[in-house]
Amino acid sequence: MAIWQTLAAQKRDSIIAAIPQEWIIPSIPKVEEVKDITGGYIQQFLSPKEIEITETDAVDIIKNASTGVWSAVEVAKAFCHRAALAHQLTNCLHEIFFEAAIRDAEALDALYSQQKPLGPLHGLPVSLKDQFHVKDVETTMGYVGWIGTHEGQKNHPKHRVYESEMVGELRSLGAILYVKTAVPHTLMSGETVNNIIGYTLNPKNRYLSSGGSSGGEGALIGARGSPVGFGTDIGGSIRIPAGFNGLFGLRPSAGRLPYEGMANSMDGQNTVLSVVGPLAPSAGGLKLVVKSLLSIKPWLDDPMVVKMPWREEEGNVEGKLTFGVLRTDGVVGLQPPVRRAVEMTLKALVEAGHEVIDWNPPSHKNVNDACLQTWRYDGGADVLAAFALSSEPMSTQVQQAYGRGQQPQFDATAIAANNVRVRNIKKEYMDYWNRTAAITRTGRPVDAIICPLAPFAAARPEGYKYYGYTTWVNLLDYTSVVVPVTNVDKSVDKVDDMYVPLDGLDKEVQASYDPELYDGAHVSVQLVGRRFQEERMLAIAEITAMSLKSSK
Amino acid sequence: MAIWQTLAAQKRDSIIAAIPQEWIIPSIPKVEEVKDITGGYIQQFLSPKEIEITETDAVDIIKNASTGVWSAVEVAKAFCHRAALAHQLTNCLHEIFFEAAIRDAEALDALYSQQKPLGPLHGLPVSLKDQFHVKDVETTMGYVGWIGTHEGQKNHPKHRVYESEMVGELRSLGAILYVKTAVPHTLMSGETVNNIIGYTLNPKNRYLSSGGSSGGEGALIGARGSPVGFGTDIGGSIRIPAGFNGLFGLRPSAGRLPYEGMANSMDGQNTVLSVVGPLAPSAGGLKLVVKSLLSIKPWLDDPMVVKMPWREEEGNVEGKLTFGVLRTDGVVGLQPPVRRAVEMTLKALVEAGHEVIDWNPPSHKNVNDACLQTWRYDGGADVLAAFALSSEPMSTQVQQAYGRGQQPQFDATAIAANNVRVRNIKKEYMDYWNRTAAITRTGRPVDAIICPLAPFAAARPEGYKYYGYTTWVNLLDYTSVVVPVTNVDKSVDKVDDMYVPLDGLDKEVQASYDPELYDGAHVSVQLVGRRFQEERMLAIAEITAMSLKSSK
Repeated sequence: MAIWQTLAAQKRDSIIAAIPQEWIIPSIPKVEEVKDITGGYIQQFLSPKEIEITETDAVDIIKNASTGVWSAVEVAKAFCHRAALAHQLTNCLHEIFFEAAIRDAEALDALYSQQKPLGPLHGLPVSLKDQFHVKDVETTMGYVGWIGTHEGQKNHPKHRVYESEMVGELRSLGAILYVKTAVPHTLMSGETVNNIIGYTLNPKNRYLSSGGSSGGEGALIGARGSPVGFGTDIGGSIRIPAGFNGLFGLRPSAGRLPYEGMANSMDGQNTVLSVVGPLAPSAGGLKLVVKSLLSIKPWLDDPMVVKMPWREEEGNVEGKLTFGVLRTDGVVGLQPPVRRAVEMTLKALVEAGHEVIDWNPPSHKNVNDACLQTWRYDGGADVLAAFALSSEPMSTQVQQAYGRGQQPQFDATAIAANNVRVRNIKKEYMDYWNRTAAITRTGRPVDAIICPLAPFAAARPEGYKYYGYTTWVNLLDYTSVVVPVTNVDKSVDKVDDMYVPLDGLDKEVQASYDPELYDGAHVSVQLVGRRFQEERMLAIAEITAMSLKSSK
Repeated sequence: MAIWQTLAAQKRDSIIAAIPQEWIIPSIPKVEEVKDITGGYIQQFLSPKEIEITETDAVDIIKNASTGVWSAVEVAKAFCHRAALAHQLTNCLHEIFFEAAIRDAEALDALYSQQKPLGPLHGLPVSLKDQFHVKDVETTMGYVGWIGTHEGQKNHPKHRVYESEMVGELRSLGAILYVKTAVPHTLMSGETVNNIIGYTLNPKNRYLSSGGSSGGEGALIGARGSPVGFGTDIGGSIRIPAGFNGLFGLRPSAGRLPYEGMANSMDGQNTVLSVVGPLAPSAGGLKLVVKSLLSIKPWLDDPMVVKMPWREEEGNVEGKLTFGVLRTDGVVGLQPPVRRAVEMTLKALVEAGHEVIDWNPPSHKNVNDACLQTWRYDGGADVLAAFALSSEPMSTQVQQAYGRGQQPQFDATAIAANNVRVRNIKKEYMDYWNRTAAITRTGRPVDAIICPLAPFAAARPEGYKYYGYTTWVNLLDYTSVVVPVTNVDKSVDKVDDMYVPLDGLDKEVQASYDPELYDGAHVSVQLVGRRFQEERMLAIAEITAMSLKSSK
């Protein structure tokens, strides 16, 4: 066994070892035996109270925990238990620190006994993607070479001491931190896989990926092992796992929420910035944590955060809206369940009195190409160096991008040229958006775009070949909220034999749809708004979810 | 004569040729004959009404022009006349389009005859730095190779047709555009010099520079040939000419005002962004134009602008404030008049009941070094290509940066490393600023920093050797407002024979002070606030100016 294998195995075992013995599932069922581990399956290991707590929305958890109905400790323990189960069934965790969480919860309860909830997140368990640094806990980001180090550096004074800015902020708001969740090494994949924890499965349908790169968050919250968590998104990494797991997920614009002090890939590439944002089973859960974070002025502690408090008035969305619908980006078409989800969404909105018009924007292919250039600036230097630390192999998923080894670096002139291209694309897209005012019933430009977030309900392992439905949003720095719509129904979502593929990739993606295998999987859409429209887009997501509910 | 010399001479002559014959000064006095061309000297060529109009503050011009007291045409003509005089005496203009301005003013007057002022800038002449593209007018940015082209490209469809975004916005607000002002070729100098118009002199003291790179703006507004104008600032280029000419100048944070569609140097370098902002004889003038621009939501037309309306409440600054004072950055010390201006400012503020404490921040040398790295990314490729278009020579002033020809380019890894360094510096500085709350009387962190903007009242030709007092603000993306304080008084501001220089550069800067030569020059300070504090810093600038007035 190579050294990297030994290190990875030790780390993997240490995660399981952090689970109390009584929470260990004696025998993990094979995928063929139990496809869907959510609902009844996972509930069998939980008490009725634990089920009640863990299936309560974040907003109501706070209500109960800050009025003494539930103690912070019982809430924390319930989620620790369910997270431990979720991990055993899906491989969704990198770090478990239940004891610290329960100590923190005890402190909150002590405070509460004096009638003083600590803050607006008093007693709310919050899961964190394994890019956040948390005291006494490691950050590996899925790299074997980062085990026992601070971001790959040995004997670093920050190792297991330093906390990312948002971690302290969440604690000060009353949140309970208890786990860090799995990511694909490099972060640059829509599937979550690395040499430490292996592959993170979709809890609703374990034949499928939980998404990535915040795939551990997706699987954990999808299994209700967390009521709300934070991921990051540079090409879809919040929205993909949210969509694949039937969750709401917010990709805010860069500079809205504090990224300060987090580990990252290709840190310092600043054409397209990775952003941090929440995933939760409800839009209300997203709003709760965003509003809470903004209440403590993160722009005073993170220089990249814009001074922009929560704007309640922007979230007061009244009257009829106009949506643009993007049914295809002209590069890769949608699998039948996703087509159905898009149509269901617009039908529901039209039934609720809103308008839907076709969205015919400037070439998304061009937008996405400019985005891809950005990630190629360093020719792979950053991630290759991280792999080299341990000589671990690259997963198939990231070989797509980095398998050819070091490529030529962009020089300053080439980077500047791409930055100018990006700015021009943003301007062109903005101008198109503005012009839609001429054709809407409201006389306003389109309020939001209804768009798939991927061509499939979820990727099949090693099947994530096209990211164009998410990356355009990153390039344009738009606000996007993922909204769950339905589930794959093999009796309805038949293979489309009449589909005429545009090219080989399109054919491959379409052919990878298998009704039997996909049956039951979550299907979602994203709603895309302009830059810095977090309040408004969360409100529009709620309106959309309610319309979908009424339409059913 | 080389071709570039012929082209430059033709262009130079065409600027003068655009001045009506009756506004030509028969004999331009030598500097030795007339040092200060402001006030009485320039007034001799103007009618009493023209003097009254051109010496009225922008806020009152609007009041008169939008209530019918003055016609837009008479306001426009008065400023055209005075601008023409200022140009002949200081070389401050690149483009003159008086006829278009008067046509536009006539249209405004016709509209006004129906009692409809066009907007909040109805009838206000606004001068623009020669980076703005204006229809029917060229943009050379001081490069001979750009004459007859669009940013150096021949037969470009945008040539003399395209307008920068803010130009259309200013027109829609009612502003009258009439001139574009001189810049140093490359824009990367605190003195304004190029092979087309030569050297732009300081109207108050023609032995001195008008500053740069918005030096044409500085000279023009300093001579009251414009009531308000827009410059840009990537290293001090708004603040330096504002300071050298006794004006107020605002360097907003990047993303507050629309830069879309402007010509630039090293476009696409996005570690430290050039920002656009106003210069005017009063803080009220700055506020007027910023508030007006934000009223039309520039974030809908410029993708780089943050959705942040004018926030009136942020400008309501009441009660006592705490200022930090930076008397030296430890690299280059201040000449006696600047030392006096800093002390006058803090004395006035203390007299008004405010607190002033010492500002002991993280190393400005380190901050400034990170900024300098940014400008070296492309090794000079962009500006060298612009010089090569015409084979014109580089001025001495920019040889400092580019005289050695093409240097190695930074690669993506090196640029990313500097971006991370910049972020860490911002965080460190922010943490220092936050910690000052522990030592202020208010219990708040310091409200603003009082800081020189240069070691001298103004640079002597070829004497701008140190930019450290402005560039730190650009690196940190802070809000800064320049406030005029006093004038050099040779009877008070003696050479400091006891000065102990830190090194050769410091010695050279200190030695370049000559009381006789500098006598009468404007002396200013800058007030620095945090990111996106435009409303608040403009208010603090007014408070400071009033305190100075009361203190005198």
